[in-house]
Amino acid sequence: MDVGFIGLGAMGSGMASELVKAGHKLKVWNRSRGPAEKLAREGAIVVERVQDAFQGEAVVTMLADDATIASVILGPGVLDGARGDLVHIVSATISVAFSRRLEEIHAQRGLAYVAAPVLGRPDVAAAGDLHILAAGDPAHIRRVAPLLEAMGKATWTIGSQPHQANLIKIATNFLLASAIEAMSESVALARRHDIDPHKLIEVITGTLFAAPAYKVYGPAILRGAFDEAGFKLALGLKDVRLALAASEEAGAPLPFAGILRDNFVDAIGHGEAEKDWAAVSKVALRRAGLES
Amino acid sequence: MDVGFIGLGAMGSGMASELVKAGHKLKVWNRSRGPAEKLAREGAIVVERVQDAFQGEAVVTMLADDATIASVILGPGVLDGARGDLVHIVSATISVAFSRRLEEIHAQRGLAYVAAPVLGRPDVAAAGDLHILAAGDPAHIRRVAPLLEAMGKATWTIGSQPHQANLIKIATNFLLASAIEAMSESVALARRHDIDPHKLIEVITGTLFAAPAYKVYGPAILRGAFDEAGFKLALGLKDVRLALAASEEAGAPLPFAGILRDNFVDAIGHGEAEKDWAAVSKVALRRAGLES
Amino acid sequence: MDVGFIGLGAMGSGMASELVKAGHKLKVWNRSRGPAEKLAREGAIVVERVQDAFQGEAVVTMLADDATIASVILGPGVLDGARGDLVHIVSATISVAFSRRLEEIHAQRGLAYVAAPVLGRPDVAAAGDLHILAAGDPAHIRRVAPLLEAMGKATWTIGSQPHQANLIKIATNFLLASAIEAMSESVALARRHDIDPHKLIEVITGTLFAAPAYKVYGPAILRGAFDEAGFKLALGLKDVRLALAASEEAGAPLPFAGILRDNFVDAIGHGEAEKDWAAVSKVALRRAGLES
Amino acid sequence: MDVGFIGLGAMGSGMASELVKAGHKLKVWNRSRGPAEKLAREGAIVVERVQDAFQGEAVVTMLADDATIASVILGPGVLDGARGDLVHIVSATISVAFSRRLEEIHAQRGLAYVAAPVLGRPDVAAAGDLHILAAGDPAHIRRVAPLLEAMGKATWTIGSQPHQANLIKIATNFLLASAIEAMSESVALARRHDIDPHKLIEVITGTLFAAPAYKVYGPAILRGAFDEAGFKLALGLKDVRLALAASEEAGAPLPFAGILRDNFVDAIGHGEAEKDWAAVSKVALRRAGLES
Repeated sequence: MDVGFIGLGAMGSGMASELVKAGHKLKVWNRSRGPAEKLAREGAIVVERVQDAFQGEAVVTMLADDATIASVILGPGVLDGARGDLVHIVSATISVAFSRRLEEIHAQRGLAYVAAPVLGRPDVAAAGDLHILAAGDPAHIRRVAPLLEAMGKATWTIGSQPHQANLIKIATNFLLASAIEAMSESVALARRHDIDPHKLIEVITGTLFAAPAYKVYGPAILRGAFDEAGFKLALGLKDVRLALAASEEAGAPLPFAGILRDNFVDAIGHGEAEKDWAAVSKVALRRAGLES
Repeated sequence: MDVGFIGLGAMGSGMASELVKAGHKLKVWNRSRGPAEKLAREGAIVVERVQDAFQGEAVVTMLADDATIASVILGPGVLDGARGDLVHIVSATISVAFSRRLEEIHAQRGLAYVAAPVLGRPDVAAAGDLHILAAGDPAHIRRVAPLLEAMGKATWTIGSQPHQANLIKIATNFLLASAIEAMSESVALARRHDIDPHKLIEVITGTLFAAPAYKVYGPAILRGAFDEAGFKLALGLKDVRLALAASEEAGAPLPFAGILRDNFVDAIGHGEAEKDWAAVSKVALRRAGLES
Repeated sequence: MDVGFIGLGAMGSGMASELVKAGHKLKVWNRSRGPAEKLAREGAIVVERVQDAFQGEAVVTMLADDATIASVILGPGVLDGARGDLVHIVSATISVAFSRRLEEIHAQRGLAYVAAPVLGRPDVAAAGDLHILAAGDPAHIRRVAPLLEAMGKATWTIGSQPHQANLIKIATNFLLASAIEAMSESVALARRHDIDPHKLIEVITGTLFAAPAYKVYGPAILRGAFDEAGFKLALGLKDVRLALAASEEAGAPLPFAGILRDNFVDAIGHGEAEKDWAAVSKVALRRAGLES
Repeated sequence: MDVGFIGLGAMGSGMASELVKAGHKLKVWNRSRGPAEKLAREGAIVVERVQDAFQGEAVVTMLADDATIASVILGPGVLDGARGDLVHIVSATISVAFSRRLEEIHAQRGLAYVAAPVLGRPDVAAAGDLHILAAGDPAHIRRVAPLLEAMGKATWTIGSQPHQANLIKIATNFLLASAIEAMSESVALARRHDIDPHKLIEVITGTLFAAPAYKVYGPAILRGAFDEAGFKLALGLKDVRLALAASEEAGAPLPFAGILRDNFVDAIGHGEAEKDWAAVSKVALRRAGLES
């Protein structure tokens, strides 16, 4: 297919690369030049203006947050000048409110909008092993199925309204942050009782919690090395905020998210913003008088 | 082996039954007569006095909590009159402090004490599929290995001090309660956004959370039927209290446990004490204005 | 003095009225006509355009929130067309970040900006008994001292940077919401123990908590009548959000604010948005199984 | 009157001293000798056995907690050997459950039991300025009115069941701890925004929070000197636990108490157990990256 791609960060680069490998004709745009040139060497075409990426059958947007997307995509000439039958796939983790707004904006212009946030970190994206949560008009999703298949190993169809996928993604990250926090508190508790926390993680990941969330982050918490950020802590706070915003919109309290917010704020105040978000575990350890 | 068994509640009955099936000579004691007679029909010998169960090679204690164990086991003539080379296996979920006290009490009498709390609900116990967390002198654990093998499908050796297994058990239940709470809040959030929560549970248990904790309790929360209590909510609060007590002893804050405590108190205040502990999910739904 | 006044809500009307009474020449602007006409009958001049209120020696802005102020004040021709030696007094409760932005915007235009948020509810404003928290260049504050004196019974000079007053105001409302919450939880606890909560409030307001915060809100919680909103619950949530935003900006966790946020969300989800913010007490009562 | 006095800690010594000064004939008992001898020099009679203090018209018990009272008062010969028309005044801060148990125990023996917990720190006790919260049979309270008047500057009659006074006392301490926590979070927030926190405390104690709770603890938090413990932090945690226990008994969630518990645990883990309980403010500061 003839596809545009906006946003070549750690996640976007891997996803775009998979599209090129799958034989799609990719027009990429990125604010900074470097990542685009890397894609060009793999076979992508670098375009100068955002709107040039909106002239194919589909375009994938993978930018950091609501504000960035708004500034890049909602400027004059972009959606207004898009090819009429294009499907706009937004894979970024955005707020439910902004996704609803994008639904309206696309509807007004008769453009197809599919939300397709992803589960997985950059290494997973680079391997084409993402789980993709797709929501939107089934016909639109069908049209871009080859792209979703190229970027992920599985597509989960969530519903016919794009923002539904965004909420599921936000909830999943909330569950993930909650699992990290619960493990962190448990590890601090075990250590203060002079119990080897490896034993704790071994038992839980060998029994009731034998799942990626615990198998990835349990050992990460034990290692205590967070410099290589699969997912930055500052973005973790952003996602907790998205959960809180969705909670306020809907009138659904989210007490665990209140705890998470505080601990991410604590971690950022202690210099961990650019570390992997599992560094939030240091808050539980520090509060228990255990320095890392 | 020649074994005593104290406490034939929902969990204990299944465990004792497995011991009989495995060919061990079982002397059972229970406060109420019914469950003991049921075991007798399977081949166990019912004894009248607690101390009669302490005359074999080992005895398993599976009572509700610290206070019950203290009243049954620490009375005159029980430990004092126990066979000298007996190994006392305590499988109940007890506090770290009480387990430490049992360590001292047994040491003073030269008795072997192994803590062996279990992971699994009554149906799992009845099937002999429990995970057993064993801690104590390795030689003692070795002596009772055939019993642990009969009662569970796997034995995890935690360490040489019994209370270590109790802490790991308490931490595991804390992680489990946290997973239930995080899912409950997410389900309430999804429902208030008019999103089918089955989709949420399907996605998470199919990806990052493909583990028993989520696969058992996710669907349970969605069903909303908690009358059949695999694990009673009142006992869930007891276990949260054990985590809080361990936190206070060790100087390790446990913010998620504070939220859990409140929600269990809320649930009990609304009449759910005897329901399955997943009924705590009703608190998140009620607070979000969703009745069940 | 020759003064403009923007925003004649419940608070603004009382403040503007005091300025007229004190003999100042007032040019008022309000989005809806009614409140302006009422002021006109007291002697104020109603102006058609916002910028007309910016032609005197000073102007007071008393609008609901950041977004409203931005839309009314930051449009073309308002600040740009303001009289050069005017002092702009912003009395609304705005975010620290927005106040900092207003500092920059005014500095760029060489305009004087004084933040002067107030403590007190509409009846206090109407009586001229507000406490005013003023921050900004001391010379600017001095120039508008007669206005501050007319609107309040006391002016507290906070510092030379306007946003400092906004933070103190936000912190004060956070303390107030915390006091309401702590009393609500205590009242629920007393009632569930069959103790007359009037006795509790009588004791605390007669001893350690003999202060307006407790003497106003304690009896209000006991009465349980929140239809007459001195300060709307939805605005209370707005102010909790301002505290949370200030917390995130500064890297200072605010665990009580997390609880407050949840309870305000809970209350709004149960239809209390337009009630007085003391209606948040109903959350503690409802959770304790006490209906009102 | 002929009065016994049990427990001459920092609080008890001041209260006993006031009774002597008022002309009552005091028989004092204390576990350690020193404080008793000091009272003897003021005119009290030191007795050797607890039961000797139970032979007058009344006896005041002022011991640290439930367990201490149980071990001192509930031993053989004490209540059983008490003078029949004696009124037992228990002024310690005890749990609601234990107070109910004391109600039963006294009723069984036909003894009069009045709960009279106090508000105030040791310096207040020494000055005879305590507020006394009295509950019990009105006739019993009347009989000991001269004693209550001697020990305090005001007696608040709470109700006819002693445990009611204990709950009000527990709630008051919970409110006090909540006020300390809310101020601590606010001070951390202000400091991280480079605002002088003295200004914050000055404003709040000069306006909405002009009450002892804030006027005593606000400046204490600012001073940051907690070595002289008016009320020890470890006892503060004990009182938070009493609130949590009352919450669990009654089915009334207490979310602020969960936060308080964690912060007291954090503080104790950081070596503050013997400091004044306002040292809990260091937790908010430390979490905000502000050392002291």
